[in-house]
Formats: sequence, C-alpha cells, structure tokens
Amino acid sequence: MAVKKASNKLEPADAAHGGRVYEAARRWGIAPEEVIDFSANINPLGPPPGVFAAIEHYIAAARLRAYPDSYAFISALADKHSVSSNEIVVGAGSAALMFAALRALNPATVAVLEPGFDEYFRACAAVEAQVTRIRLTEKNNFAPDFGALARLIETRQCDLVILNSPHNPTGRLYAREDLMALLDVAEANDVTVLLDEAFIDYAPQASLLHVAATTSRLIVLRSLTKFYAIPGLRVGYAVCSSDMAASINRQLDAWPVSTVALEAGRAALVEDEYERVSRSVNAQARKEFAAALSEIGLSVFPSDANFLLVGLSRGSGAELAEWLESSRILIRRLDSFSGLGDAYIRLAVRSSEDNLRLVSLVDTWLGGSAKE
Amino acid sequence: MAVKKASNKLEPADAAHGGRVYEAARRWGIAPEEVIDFSANINPLGPPPGVFAAIEHYIAAARLRAYPDSYAFISALADKHSVSSNEIVVGAGSAALMFAALRALNPATVAVLEPGFDEYFRACAAVEAQVTRIRLTEKNNFAPDFGALARLIETRQCDLVILNSPHNPTGRLYAREDLMALLDVAEANDVTVLLDEAFIDYAPQASLLHVAATTSRLIVLRSLTKFYAIPGLRVGYAVCSSDMAASINRQLDAWPVSTVALEAGRAALVEDEYERVSRSVNAQARKEFAAALSEIGLSVFPSDANFLLVGLSRGSGAELAEWLESSRILIRRLDSFSGLGDAYIRLAVRSSEDNLRLVSLVDTWLGGSAKE
Repeated sequence: MAVKKASNKLEPADAAHGGRVYEAARRWGIAPEEVIDFSANINPLGPPPGVFAAIEHYIAAARLRAYPDSYAFISALADKHSVSSNEIVVGAGSAALMFAALRALNPATVAVLEPGFDEYFRACAAVEAQVTRIRLTEKNNFAPDFGALARLIETRQCDLVILNSPHNPTGRLYAREDLMALLDVAEANDVTVLLDEAFIDYAPQASLLHVAATTSRLIVLRSLTKFYAIPGLRVGYAVCSSDMAASINRQLDAWPVSTVALEAGRAALVEDEYERVSRSVNAQARKEFAAALSEIGLSVFPSDANFLLVGLSRGSGAELAEWLESSRILIRRLDSFSGLGDAYIRLAVRSSEDNLRLVSLVDTWLGGSAKE
Repeated sequence: MAVKKASNKLEPADAAHGGRVYEAARRWGIAPEEVIDFSANINPLGPPPGVFAAIEHYIAAARLRAYPDSYAFISALADKHSVSSNEIVVGAGSAALMFAALRALNPATVAVLEPGFDEYFRACAAVEAQVTRIRLTEKNNFAPDFGALARLIETRQCDLVILNSPHNPTGRLYAREDLMALLDVAEANDVTVLLDEAFIDYAPQASLLHVAATTSRLIVLRSLTKFYAIPGLRVGYAVCSSDMAASINRQLDAWPVSTVALEAGRAALVEDEYERVSRSVNAQARKEFAAALSEIGLSVFPSDANFLLVGLSRGSGAELAEWLESSRILIRRLDSFSGLGDAYIRLAVRSSEDNLRLVSLVDTWLGGSAKE
C-alpha cells in the first residue's frame, strides 16, 4: 500500500484560487467583510432573502441536532429541472462532486481545456489520471477547437473530457450545438463528458442539464455558490443518468451536505425574481465594466458570465494586485492558471460603483507605471 | 474506463444508519423536532450556547458570501491538542475524512471489526479494497482479540486496520496499552491503523490523538457531531503525520468544510464547562438507563460512550421499532449491522426522563409480547 504522492502539476489548493478573503483580512488587519473582493465570482447582490430566512428557521428549530436529509432539496431540484430525483446527486459544492465523479469514472486519461479551473487538475491528480491539455489561445478569443477535441475522442486518446461553460477564466459560453455534436462523438466512442455549468445561471438557455438525464455519457455539474452568493455554505449538484448518479453516490459518505446548506439551497431555488434581477443587473454592469476597462487601454475578452478576463497593457497582475492591497481590493492573478501568464487578470463583476472605482484605480496605476 | 460497480456487501447509505429523523417526520406527518430519536447518538444537551452565537454572528456579518477558510479552526484545534496545524486535516464530518484517508492510502486489504459502523464498509467498497472481517462475539462482551489482529498484521494479511474506540455499536472502549501494542506491531510491518475516536469525548483519557502526530502509521479521526450535538453541520478532523495529512488533503477539494461549520466548530472547542457537564450527565444517565433496562430483563453490554447495546429477551428489533412508532420514538435496529442480528438494538442515552419513558414502554411491549 503506497500513499499517493503529489503529481508534479499539483499546487497547494490555497494558492490556486481566488476569494481568499479571510487570508487578506488577517494580513490587512481588517474584518473579512471590509475586503473588496474582485477575485471570486460571487453575485454582488448577496444571498437572496429567502436564504437568510431558511437559516434562521433552521437554527430556531434546533435542527442542528439531527443528521442531514437531502430528500426535500433533491425533490425541489427534480421539480425545478423536470428530472427524476435519482438523476441528481448532491454534494458539498460542485468541486466535491467533481472529485467524486472522477473517482466513480476512474479515467486513465482526461482531456482538460487550458487555462481552466484548478480543481480539475487537482481532481485528476487525486485519481492519478493522466491529463491531456487542450490549449485555448488568445488569437481565437480563447474559443475551444471542437474539431480537435472530437479527433482526440475518436482516436481514444482520452476517456473523459472536462468542459466548463461559461468557461472560467475566459467567460466564454459554448454553443449548445457544438456541445451536442461533441457529445454525439463521445457517445459513439464510450467517452464521458463532464460539463461544469457553475456559471450557467447567467446564460441558462445554453444549459445541457436536460440532456444529462437522458444519456449515460454526460454529467452536468451545477453550483449554487456563485449565482446565489453562498460559497461559504458548500452545496452543489450533479445531473446525470441514474446509474451514474448511483455510482457517484457510492463515492460520497452518507451525509455529504449540511442541513443548513440543504435548507438554504432549497430556499434559493424558488427565488425567481432574484434570478431575473441578478441576470439583468449582471449583464448591465458587465457591459459598463468592460467598456470602461477597454477605454483605459486594457483588452477585455467577451464574457457570458459574471467575470471578465482582462489583458494588461503593461505591468503584471502580481504588481497590480500588490498595488491594490492598500485599497483593500483583491483581484485574481492568473499566473497560477495554467496556460495564462501574468499579463492577464480576472475580475468579478461587482456593483457599478465598485467596478468603476476599480477602473479608476487601475487607470491611475497604469499612468504611474507608464511614467516610470 | 469502467464505472465502479457496487460491491456485493454494499447497502444503500440511508438504510444503514440511525438518525433518520426527517424521514420519520415525513412518514408520521410531524415536525422533525417532535421525533424522539434514540437511534442516533447525539448529546441530549443540544449544541453548546457558543455554537448558536457563532452561527448568528456569521449570518449577521454576511459571511455567506465568502469562500470558507479553515485557518482559524485548524489553529484552534492545534492549540487545544498541542499538535501542529499541518498534522490536522479538516473535513465535512469524520466519515468524509475516512473516505479521503482510504483514497490516500489506497489499501488492497483492510481489517475491520464486525459488527462495525457501516461507513467503514462503504469506504472500503468505494476504493475497491478487500475487507477482512474480524468478528466480535457476545460471549467475550464484544471485546476484540488483539492477538488475532496482531497476527493478521504480522502475516501481512491486511495493510490497513480500522478501529473504533469507544466501539460503535458495542460502546466498548479499548485500553490504551492494547492499542499501543497493536500500533507497535503495525509500525514494524508497515501497516496503518485508522482509529475512529468519534465517541472518545466521553472517555478522553483513552485517546491516542497525541500519538498520531508523532508516527506515520496512525490516523486518528475525531468528530464534533455527537458530543457537540451538531450532526447537521458536517465537521470533523483527522490528526496524523504531516506527510499523511498532506496526502489526505490532496483527496479533498479546496473548500471541504462550510464556514458555518468551521465557526460553530471553533466555538464548540472552547466550551470547557459544557464538556465537563456533558460527560458527567451522560455517565449518570447511562448508569440509570442500563440498570432500568436490565431490570426489565434485557441484556445490556458495558459502554463507555453515550449509547447502549441491548440484547432483547424476546421479539425482534424490527417488531419493537415498529411498535414504538406510535410513540414517535426511533430506535436503532441492528439487523443491517453486519455481525449482529435482529435480537439486538442500540439505544442512545438521552435525558433521564426520555430514557425511563422508553424503558417503561419496552416493558409494556415485552409484557404484551409474553402474553401472546
């Protein structure tokens, strides 16, 4: 029995993600809520009101004392999405479900788009799968080459493909028809597609969730973290065939999600008005933010999500991030995002006020940098 | 890539555990808090006051919006136990950590005491490890045969041993010297011991936690669920060598525990008075409960935890459980606990009032059963 060693590509989890608000607060000697976080892509409206009510109710009813039961949450998801309860798996966030899905599938080789979310690479390392990296390039606005992916599948050079739409960190939404065509090729070759739809609530028409329940070769991961602004609670779900769902569930312990997260999640799902407003507020703020960033000379890539990939005209993400610390602002450096360099940053779309303040600060920084 | 199939010993997780309070409430058409649950071993005092305060503070500060950060909780654990932060791994309950530890170790064969907690068998199935079952027998008051375990290790018939002290469902505490002697044999033979101390707060002097940080062959799992009455929150931790801790962490996603659980956990750790009172209340109630159960003719086995293994003098656990439903009472049937039959039940130690009410009900049932 050999303890699994770290792969050479593995980075410490805490260095590979944005949203390190508590760490920044400790370093700066302030409260976490005083940190202005552009580094994690969380809905700036905050959690919908029903979520707070659900948590208050949960505490008042002394339900801390009972083991969690996911029945009601899964039923609510099944209703909302018109799929069966046994085609849904709940977990403590979509990252936890991705680890469980990879264990259930136990792939030898996984195709992953690069740059991509670091947990994909960590999950592949955890199951000792080999990773084939498909590079996204700036000259093509970071669009994936679906033809190359299909050829990789047809020649059996991978047995799992991980995709992410809208893609993080580029913000790019993949067209349904491109995904469906790729899925056809995958099905014909017994290859599975794991599609992370963590940001799809900003473009729900493009979701493949309904397809997932009807094929054995597609697993769709959904998160409540970003859109409902509850990353602190840890809850997400997968939709897939019932056989696959049973197989993923066998990789999870009996109580993977806390009652508070289940109750908050259930409350979030019925917040239709919050959903509608969040989408429209984000679309407007993103447009304004992108225009203002372009105006000060930065490259802004097209995004369908609640964040923007930005190319710096001068200087590095590391330098800018350090300079913004005095304003208590966190941005997402991308030097740890494989496939991108330090000339790129990722910015969450926050309130118009926060966004324009950041643009003004970056403009000052660029001016200062230019004068050096 | 073959999707992992269920092992023949695997049972649905929801059928293999007590504490199915929400399910009972749905079936009986009552609120979950009206269920009188003797089937899960949760401290009847309920969560310590600091836990509620921590959750209220967490919600008020709008910290739902930030990703969790385990730094403060791990530091508090390190302080409390005088070990290093890098010798601690936190997870969403000790069951989740057991799954992660088994993935990190990837054992071929695991020795497990039978009857034992069902998640051990599920975790072994998840990593496709073979299980060697060491039977505990009633004639020996369910004491494990440490000599037989040592021989199994010396002859390399297993590469991991899972132990549980106090043992669930027997309640039996293992002597430190027996465990230390076994650990010596394990170390000499490169075999790892995974020691689940989920109920050790009721007998803290017997813990091997401090040993775990100083050897590469012992992993101690600790739960906050039972003693602090917060099974709904999902938080637990492992103590082991720093190398092993890093290896287990690689099997977990970046944010395994929710902020609410981390904050509640941190608040629970400093509740010294609650700890002291919980232990003394439990010891007294357990003694009274055991005596009353013996008095109505049942076999009660010695327990150092907050539950009792009880042998029925007539009838079956299934029949008794069904009969108690009209009183809104859940007990733990043990027909799904491998190694025990339906002539045994497990009862949580609750308040003196609840316990004596149950004894009176069981007495009535036995009388009725005798008259048939």
